[in-house]
Amino acid sequence: MKSIKTAIIGMTGYAGEELARLLYAHPKAHIEIATSKSYQNQCFSDIYNNFTHISDKVLTAENLYEISKKVDVIFLALPHGIASSEVTSAVLKNCKVIDLGADFRLKSQNTYEHWYNTEHHAPELLQEAVYGLCEIHREKIKNAKLVANPGCYTTTSILGLYPAVSEALIDFETIIIDAKSGVSGAGRAQNLATQYCETNENMKAYKIASHRHTSEIEQELSFAANTDIKLIFTPHLVPMNRGILTAIYAKLKPGVNYNDVKAAYDKHFGNEYFVRLMKKGNFPETKWTKGTNFIDIGFQIDERTNSLIILGALDNLVKGAAGQAVQNMNLMFDLDEKMGLQYAGIFPA
Amino acid sequence: MKSIKTAIIGMTGYAGEELARLLYAHPKAHIEIATSKSYQNQCFSDIYNNFTHISDKVLTAENLYEISKKVDVIFLALPHGIASSEVTSAVLKNCKVIDLGADFRLKSQNTYEHWYNTEHHAPELLQEAVYGLCEIHREKIKNAKLVANPGCYTTTSILGLYPAVSEALIDFETIIIDAKSGVSGAGRAQNLATQYCETNENMKAYKIASHRHTSEIEQELSFAANTDIKLIFTPHLVPMNRGILTAIYAKLKPGVNYNDVKAAYDKHFGNEYFVRLMKKGNFPETKWTKGTNFIDIGFQIDERTNSLIILGALDNLVKGAAGQAVQNMNLMFDLDEKMGLQYAGIFPA
Amino acid sequence: MKSIKTAIIGMTGYAGEELARLLYAHPKAHIEIATSKSYQNQCFSDIYNNFTHISDKVLTAENLYEISKKVDVIFLALPHGIASSEVTSAVLKNCKVIDLGADFRLKSQNTYEHWYNTEHHAPELLQEAVYGLCEIHREKIKNAKLVANPGCYTTTSILGLYPAVSEALIDFETIIIDAKSGVSGAGRAQNLATQYCETNENMKAYKIASHRHTSEIEQELSFAANTDIKLIFTPHLVPMNRGILTAIYAKLKPGVNYNDVKAAYDKHFGNEYFVRLMKKGNFPETKWTKGTNFIDIGFQIDERTNSLIILGALDNLVKGAAGQAVQNMNLMFDLDEKMGLQYAGIFPA
Amino acid sequence: MKSIKTAIIGMTGYAGEELARLLYAHPKAHIEIATSKSYQNQCFSDIYNNFTHISDKVLTAENLYEISKKVDVIFLALPHGIASSEVTSAVLKNCKVIDLGADFRLKSQNTYEHWYNTEHHAPELLQEAVYGLCEIHREKIKNAKLVANPGCYTTTSILGLYPAVSEALIDFETIIIDAKSGVSGAGRAQNLATQYCETNENMKAYKIASHRHTSEIEQELSFAANTDIKLIFTPHLVPMNRGILTAIYAKLKPGVNYNDVKAAYDKHFGNEYFVRLMKKGNFPETKWTKGTNFIDIGFQIDERTNSLIILGALDNLVKGAAGQAVQNMNLMFDLDEKMGLQYAGIFPA
Repeated sequence: MKSIKTAIIGMTGYAGEELARLLYAHPKAHIEIATSKSYQNQCFSDIYNNFTHISDKVLTAENLYEISKKVDVIFLALPHGIASSEVTSAVLKNCKVIDLGADFRLKSQNTYEHWYNTEHHAPELLQEAVYGLCEIHREKIKNAKLVANPGCYTTTSILGLYPAVSEALIDFETIIIDAKSGVSGAGRAQNLATQYCETNENMKAYKIASHRHTSEIEQELSFAANTDIKLIFTPHLVPMNRGILTAIYAKLKPGVNYNDVKAAYDKHFGNEYFVRLMKKGNFPETKWTKGTNFIDIGFQIDERTNSLIILGALDNLVKGAAGQAVQNMNLMFDLDEKMGLQYAGIFPA
Repeated sequence: MKSIKTAIIGMTGYAGEELARLLYAHPKAHIEIATSKSYQNQCFSDIYNNFTHISDKVLTAENLYEISKKVDVIFLALPHGIASSEVTSAVLKNCKVIDLGADFRLKSQNTYEHWYNTEHHAPELLQEAVYGLCEIHREKIKNAKLVANPGCYTTTSILGLYPAVSEALIDFETIIIDAKSGVSGAGRAQNLATQYCETNENMKAYKIASHRHTSEIEQELSFAANTDIKLIFTPHLVPMNRGILTAIYAKLKPGVNYNDVKAAYDKHFGNEYFVRLMKKGNFPETKWTKGTNFIDIGFQIDERTNSLIILGALDNLVKGAAGQAVQNMNLMFDLDEKMGLQYAGIFPA
Repeated sequence: MKSIKTAIIGMTGYAGEELARLLYAHPKAHIEIATSKSYQNQCFSDIYNNFTHISDKVLTAENLYEISKKVDVIFLALPHGIASSEVTSAVLKNCKVIDLGADFRLKSQNTYEHWYNTEHHAPELLQEAVYGLCEIHREKIKNAKLVANPGCYTTTSILGLYPAVSEALIDFETIIIDAKSGVSGAGRAQNLATQYCETNENMKAYKIASHRHTSEIEQELSFAANTDIKLIFTPHLVPMNRGILTAIYAKLKPGVNYNDVKAAYDKHFGNEYFVRLMKKGNFPETKWTKGTNFIDIGFQIDERTNSLIILGALDNLVKGAAGQAVQNMNLMFDLDEKMGLQYAGIFPA
Repeated sequence: MKSIKTAIIGMTGYAGEELARLLYAHPKAHIEIATSKSYQNQCFSDIYNNFTHISDKVLTAENLYEISKKVDVIFLALPHGIASSEVTSAVLKNCKVIDLGADFRLKSQNTYEHWYNTEHHAPELLQEAVYGLCEIHREKIKNAKLVANPGCYTTTSILGLYPAVSEALIDFETIIIDAKSGVSGAGRAQNLATQYCETNENMKAYKIASHRHTSEIEQELSFAANTDIKLIFTPHLVPMNRGILTAIYAKLKPGVNYNDVKAAYDKHFGNEYFVRLMKKGNFPETKWTKGTNFIDIGFQIDERTNSLIILGALDNLVKGAAGQAVQNMNLMFDLDEKMGLQYAGIFPA
């Protein structure tokens, strides 16, 4: 089989750069075109010296339609609001698109415009777009032209809850997601709040009861529950580069016990390579997922309060962004889903 | 007034050492005796070089009864299970005692023995001991002989919830406390899990649904609610030296709105110097409390789920340990409660 | 004695804010006026929440001459090039000035303009200004109107070498200073290079053979040596908030041994409160100086290469900036030099 | 070609575990046997959860002779002093050995016993052993039975200096190496000094003028210089997981200029894949090498002091340990030297 020609739009953000790392190591894909708004005509390895001796790619300007004629798949790693202006039916006739941003994740234009507080420029594509959470929408992804790669928080949250919600083991009105993220989730921007001295040796919550990923989590869990779910999602910033840890709480439905929960997680994820279910009494730590496409999930029944506590961990730039994008690409091009993603994490790192 | 003579039992743990920092700066107290099991006969400043040119104290062995004859107050900074063997009525006849450990915090011997999985050696003192959360038990503390200084997690959790629980604004069956702590909370021990490379760049939860501080939080909130409360408490380890951030969730009782909650917090804490209530829309960050005896509290109503979200932050070694102990001492010796504790935190640090 | 009225010009940078921390705790000085270019008319404690309940100061605009009429001393915490435009003879007639910036540190206008690549606007004040390294220029500082507070790197470097150079124990042509600094040394600016993810888990050198502090170190050591000294100074950025560690290397002159070096350091610093000479075989660590005005110095003779290796550590924002400024103020106003600076460092922090 | 059968002796230390990461990703080698003293009969992925779904290897006891009959190459990742007892001629008849420890690095038994303060148990193998710094001893390594893999500090130091020393551009009596290492260099041991709170937010030097790696650096540079070299080597501990940054200083010989130095580095390393020479004015940062086998080298001429300043950076667990071991294996088995090591580093990480 020929190597898949890819383009990365926005390769100098952290997600774009991580995608480059994965694609340079991928056996059946290569980067044909790489763009950057801020660093046009510069050598990628002059921006990211970790690519010296690996990449001699020069960053170019972005013209999505022209690029779509030259490649098999375009990865978009852009701030929200841009992809919906640039992805068109014409582009999608030429090549497949995997959007790492938020523009095509929500099925409802209203919900998007409410949470993102901006107009959506391509509402006609919302139904065509497939939500790229491979473990849940695998079959649709295989045939998709346009895949909306999930957010980092949402991947942990949805996968953590999916079996419990699908099997209706919990009271849907009691779901609380308390999520903690490393700083790379904020992207590679100049920002006083994420200056080293402002973030190091500090822990804080932010966007309390108002983070946009809430809408994405609710959409997918509502589909799974077949009813409308509203939940609390609280993100936190942790002084570390990578990793998301999520603690999820919900009241168990009457009569539900450990074995029921265990059976649900085994049923949905027991055969999923990238979901590592922890043994009883063990819980995930972000360090074990660093650099990989794995998500680790463990849970505990609290009999005192009749609650289910689910812990999930992943690398926000891999399973939470670039790795999942490659997993989607593998599915869309009928490759082994694990291709290029099957390696041990680096530790300590 | 004469300077209060103090003894610190266990001055080479992190809490004992922090107490030394505060007492060396206290205008009306001094350290008469300092003991250490591991470093007897050594100079304190040879163990902690931050005290060079500040302290020439030599560490001695511990004999609580003999020490009680020479000082006005003894601070105990020991692992649990020891204080209850050594504090006796005879000791308490000679001097006051402030125990930074867990032995005298719970009123119920059964509850103690259940959660700590060990025998209590002085159950007869449990009722006499006063729980040293100054903002709640101020009057009792003033007359106490034996004060049980609260734990670090518990101070954040109880103070965070106290107004909401006292005023019955929330559904007591829905309380969830998701707490995140810096590593100094684990003490100064050789431990593989807290080796630098195992803890740095990592986030994890631990003792899920089983941490001992749960019992302490439930005791105090049950007193406040005048009914038995059971709740979920989940501690996490964060890669930073100091600080606890706590996110607390509960369903609001029907009809309770922002103003009700605001009024409750103002009523209980509006005049408390060490409780800093955040302005609407602002939330605490651990960095602002570092090195100080302040606890910062903010809250948010989530109308979508009819929930109250409370955020609290403090320095686990100060308001969560040594600072609160000094605040207790000030109360017990009829000094200005703020004495020695009224300074700005160090930032960035 | 009445409280000294002070003004801090630029109180929202890290050095200005650290000065505020120290002055709020100072028994004989208070902040009368605080200015900020970026945050005029805002409450200082809204920018730095660590000051909530400590300070209700509102930040004002800066007009140095007007301010000079209202206070006893002005602290300038400004980027270089501004102080030399604003400090005038008229200002100095009204009050004393302590400049934490670089404008008045060098005696030679040429040297300043060469290293700083900018014009000096007040060359006539260069001779009047006293270099505020208290341990070296104490007597001159006492009578100074204008004190140039030394840089953070330079304090460590000059004090580390001063006895060895003054006593001519080393070959002046072989001095190498390898310095490592925490990130707060870069100030509170939005800067891609000091974003958390770019700085955390990284170590780098910068401004190799070209850092401006070189000129300041050479000036002071040349005075001490009574001959022109040129040396290598290499700064590094370390992923931590505060602290400078400096390793200094030089060949010993023939016949110089351990006792000679020991005698020199004892002679110059044996009675200096803020210089803590380490015992033989012990070396400084930045953590022991954090938050304090101490500088810790240790040295080793390497007989294999006939070299002297000196290690020095301090807190760049205290002895390297705000603390030294307060020490200077104490000297200038005939107070105990240690006033407000005599406390143990915070650890772990 | 068949897959190379390897054994890792001591796979649960950080170097052993990193070797596992690299060998699981190597196209032409696999781990046949993995041993651990502390974790015998346990599943490797239960100790290091980053290997869950990657490795099902069970750790066994170590019997070097028996193992040597079953594999093509043994990697030893042991504390010093053990390898020299266990590696025998009989073992070397059965298979090749790559020792990541110090036992076979020094040619002189005396030097070893002096610096390591212990007896050497296999002095007869010292001459046979090849020092495994591939860029310098490539041809000898290809035919070696026993390779002594260099230390982490030594790789940076020797490669940084090799061209300057080989071409005699510097005064050999003036070499100073100031090295800074992440904490993983201290290994995975329970140690108070490397507990999180003792190491985080701190910088220190250690083993000043007495670190064992000095002997190794001097040996190799003395070979290169064809004369006996003595130098200063100062290691430092930096609060980060991985990475070594080394600043090297030496006086230039009269008349040597930038072009001479540039020519020397180009000559020796211009074609070396794993040595990345920085462009003029650029200098290495450890972050760009993280997780990879690259060493980045830059230099600066300081005309003011007629000195050469060389900066080098690498990942202490890869080019400084496990990666170089794989590079050695590739050479010894006539594979492409880059096999399994040709990928971009992970950033931010």
